[in-house]
Amino acid sequence: MGEEAFEKLEDHLNKGEYEGKRYRHVPDYRRGIERGTVLIEGTAVRGFPKVPRTLVLEEGVPTHFDGRVTVEEKLNGYNVRVANVNGDVLAFSRSGMVCPFTTRYLGNRLDLEAVFEEYPAAMVCGEMIGPENPYTAHDYPGVDSLEFRAFDWRDRESGEPLPIEERRERYDAFGIPQTRFFGTYDVHEAAGEVERIVTDLDADDREGVVMKSPDGETQLKYTTSAANQGDLEFAFSLPFDYGQPFMFRRIIREAFQSVEWDEDPETREGRAHDLGEAILLSMTDTIDTIADGERIGERHTVRARPETVDALLEHLRNQGLTLEIIEDEGSGDDRVVTFEKRVQSTNDKTRNYLEGHIVTE
Amino acid sequence: MGEEAFEKLEDHLNKGEYEGKRYRHVPDYRRGIERGTVLIEGTAVRGFPKVPRTLVLEEGVPTHFDGRVTVEEKLNGYNVRVANVNGDVLAFSRSGMVCPFTTRYLGNRLDLEAVFEEYPAAMVCGEMIGPENPYTAHDYPGVDSLEFRAFDWRDRESGEPLPIEERRERYDAFGIPQTRFFGTYDVHEAAGEVERIVTDLDADDREGVVMKSPDGETQLKYTTSAANQGDLEFAFSLPFDYGQPFMFRRIIREAFQSVEWDEDPETREGRAHDLGEAILLSMTDTIDTIADGERIGERHTVRARPETVDALLEHLRNQGLTLEIIEDEGSGDDRVVTFEKRVQSTNDKTRNYLEGHIVTE
Repeated sequence: MGEEAFEKLEDHLNKGEYEGKRYRHVPDYRRGIERGTVLIEGTAVRGFPKVPRTLVLEEGVPTHFDGRVTVEEKLNGYNVRVANVNGDVLAFSRSGMVCPFTTRYLGNRLDLEAVFEEYPAAMVCGEMIGPENPYTAHDYPGVDSLEFRAFDWRDRESGEPLPIEERRERYDAFGIPQTRFFGTYDVHEAAGEVERIVTDLDADDREGVVMKSPDGETQLKYTTSAANQGDLEFAFSLPFDYGQPFMFRRIIREAFQSVEWDEDPETREGRAHDLGEAILLSMTDTIDTIADGERIGERHTVRARPETVDALLEHLRNQGLTLEIIEDEGSGDDRVVTFEKRVQSTNDKTRNYLEGHIVTE
Repeated sequence: MGEEAFEKLEDHLNKGEYEGKRYRHVPDYRRGIERGTVLIEGTAVRGFPKVPRTLVLEEGVPTHFDGRVTVEEKLNGYNVRVANVNGDVLAFSRSGMVCPFTTRYLGNRLDLEAVFEEYPAAMVCGEMIGPENPYTAHDYPGVDSLEFRAFDWRDRESGEPLPIEERRERYDAFGIPQTRFFGTYDVHEAAGEVERIVTDLDADDREGVVMKSPDGETQLKYTTSAANQGDLEFAFSLPFDYGQPFMFRRIIREAFQSVEWDEDPETREGRAHDLGEAILLSMTDTIDTIADGERIGERHTVRARPETVDALLEHLRNQGLTLEIIEDEGSGDDRVVTFEKRVQSTNDKTRNYLEGHIVTE
């Protein structure tokens, strides 16, 4: 992975700049190179590989794995990769942009210097979770604002992962918080164990699991009904801004899970009712709001040093988002800002339909 | 509308042949010419115009109409236009194919000769409804098999409609059955009247209404929750064969109706539960069936003269459909055949997922 590989992709690269450092990155899925791969000041930082999903554990797990399977928690936040680029510790988004907010936020709260001193080619991979999150807010007990949880450790150039056990020991040694580890199971008992684990996670409104081969090479994910329905609730609250395939896939997952778990008619009906509420009630709330003359937006709260908050708002605006600041207060050394990302289609289309515009499909 | 207009569209025309009569037709929506327009032996038969829809009656009706609005029932079946082409009475599908089944079926059961003798340029427009229907089966009390209901009368060349009153009187005079007429209302009371009518239709599991200006020129449709949910139930029973926009539009309609009708929380929750059942339970039934080693298909029963049934099966097979005959019996002069149209994607994809194939989205 060097300059030459990048030259071939030139037409598909986005350009960026962070504090005078120019970089190029692969913003979408391409054959042969991970989305999010970055070339910055002669350093390549590999994209985080797409994690495949199974809709059916009992068949999908043994089809995908041999031998033993480790199970760790999949958290609902945003994916970040952290690497040391010529002495600067930078946080990269899934698509390969330097995130000025996450870079500063982690720089102030997590000591990664020791990691990069010992392992300069490390790519620290993890999830940013919690309610005060500028991209995807989700509540986790014990997480009051926004925290990092490591879930992978890879070589930034080759993308090679550490084996799970080694990775977990290393992060422990450095005092870096990690995603939950559930266990390592024989491939033939793994599906049953995962069903049990996912049932518990579902009851706690958590997202799901990532299964891996012990060497960390092979990955597979599976999510809870709570996650599917939570995503649907959010997507249908912005029905004309979310992709229909996004919605459709989550509906499909619910059906396969219900069948695999052999739900009795009452349980299945309960799932159907919850699904219907997730879809309809979020949409009627949105329409009611717009009918009342208000606008719908995507609201987030962040708590960070004033300079970090400024960097975030500037970064989002540079991406073309229109932001409205709802609240802006100081709190100790931090600034707590609630802002709303403007969404266009849901407001415009809903208003049009409410005004009696005609649908010609 | 003549040869010249058609020449310009040459690249977008489909060709067909019916009993030695060659024809060309416009199979999809094009600017400036109705989908389904046919040129056959020098005669042009106009496509039936797309009927626009409102999601909100209170605003949509006065935006769309002036003065007075007539309301008739919209039936759930398939659209057919009948015209006299050089002495042969032919039935055309929505997309402009001669339907050999409908042509024969109507020829045997409905006396249209008198209509065309008096009005040779008439285009008789209506819906084929009932449970024994090769395209869209829906139960209507009093309709045991398959029947025709006229809902429009147009000039076949110009597409000009008759005014509603004149049209209804003419069909009455010829003894041709028609869709139900609910009334003519002042535009400002029409939305309220339609809400009342649609609520009754919904309780009877019927589809909805078409509103028209009394001259027949302007049309607008609005459907019941029963129709939206019935369509969703069907679509999600074949989830990988139906378009996601088809599903999405019907979900959206439910939300706007719930808001416009200002449903109390309990009623809205009930609608959400029904919606969830329509979506999830049809899908889990399909997955269960395929998990049991069976195939899913689209099943229809038709009852007609043996020659008419043969013409249908040949017509469907000529369109590339794979049919399986489930039952085939005589009944008086008629043959009663139950057949299944094979669907591909739902069977293949569902089986793949059940076998543990991986999803990479």
